[in-house]
Amino acid sequence: MSIILTPIGFVKTDFAGEERRDRPFEELEADIEILDEYVDGLEGIDGFSHLLVFFYLHKVPSEGRRRLKVQPRIVTKYGLNLEEVPLVGVFCLDAPSRPNPIGLSVAKLLWRKGKVLHVKGIDALNETPVLDIKPYSPARKVEKFELPEWYKTIIATARANGHNITDF
Amino acid sequence: MSIILTPIGFVKTDFAGEERRDRPFEELEADIEILDEYVDGLEGIDGFSHLLVFFYLHKVPSEGRRRLKVQPRIVTKYGLNLEEVPLVGVFCLDAPSRPNPIGLSVAKLLWRKGKVLHVKGIDALNETPVLDIKPYSPARKVEKFELPEWYKTIIATARANGHNITDF
Repeated sequence: MSIILTPIGFVKTDFAGEERRDRPFEELEADIEILDEYVDGLEGIDGFSHLLVFFYLHKVPSEGRRRLKVQPRIVTKYGLNLEEVPLVGVFCLDAPSRPNPIGLSVAKLLWRKGKVLHVKGIDALNETPVLDIKPYSPARKVEKFELPEWYKTIIATARANGHNITDF
Repeated sequence: MSIILTPIGFVKTDFAGEERRDRPFEELEADIEILDEYVDGLEGIDGFSHLLVFFYLHKVPSEGRRRLKVQPRIVTKYGLNLEEVPLVGVFCLDAPSRPNPIGLSVAKLLWRKGKVLHVKGIDALNETPVLDIKPYSPARKVEKFELPEWYKTIIATARANGHNITDF
């Protein structure tokens, strides 16, 4: 069974690849340029402060789609050795290499001009195809949730190392 | 440009279609049965209380993918007339008919046994193809967010009609 999707627009940023790695995407601003044929779908979107942006991680090679276990490599930025982090399933992490490389960012909508949404906090590269946009509404927010021990240990170790993170 | 995805599993519930409409999905329990070839991707998932479940809305007909403006029909359940709600873009709502019919539910993980995730709160029908699972982690939660006036008006009107909702 194949499911066929098509871009509704593209991300436009100064970052096309690896050089973006060292910058926290949370602070990066980018444009989402919606294709002309889908612009009517934006009517009424102004006023949402945050959007869920779904995109296709187009730089993931086909062998990346076969990867089922990964280590959260980002933790090396927070002073952890890879020996300190477990090998876990891709469905426990936000790693780009996964069977269906769909990315999701909760991005802040700063402004819109016609077909362009100017957002902050999208974890995507230049020319990333955008698949869908949904509003961040109350139902998306879970007041109380739990994390596994291995996940909490990574956050606690990073914080002990002086990195003021709440997630990774 | 076509993007080709493939199911990693399927939703199993007693509800195959329209008869589910009158039940609030938030209270419904369902199984997600992951295909054998992707089970390794679940390792470490136990302990997350909530998961982001991405699925393909397989019942949306092809003409539904061309719909760009919709009215939130669900509000009629809350005592509003359709004349009271605006026609807005699909990217402002969670309506299933949209260019790429991807659904997202924040579901509660009640238990896992091997390839079966038993969840509560998935807004999907029986045999819905699941595309991806990501953990609900701190980065997914926006503490402070804003909604447009039209959206707040719908919630306020429903509440004035005696429906204790926070979203629709």
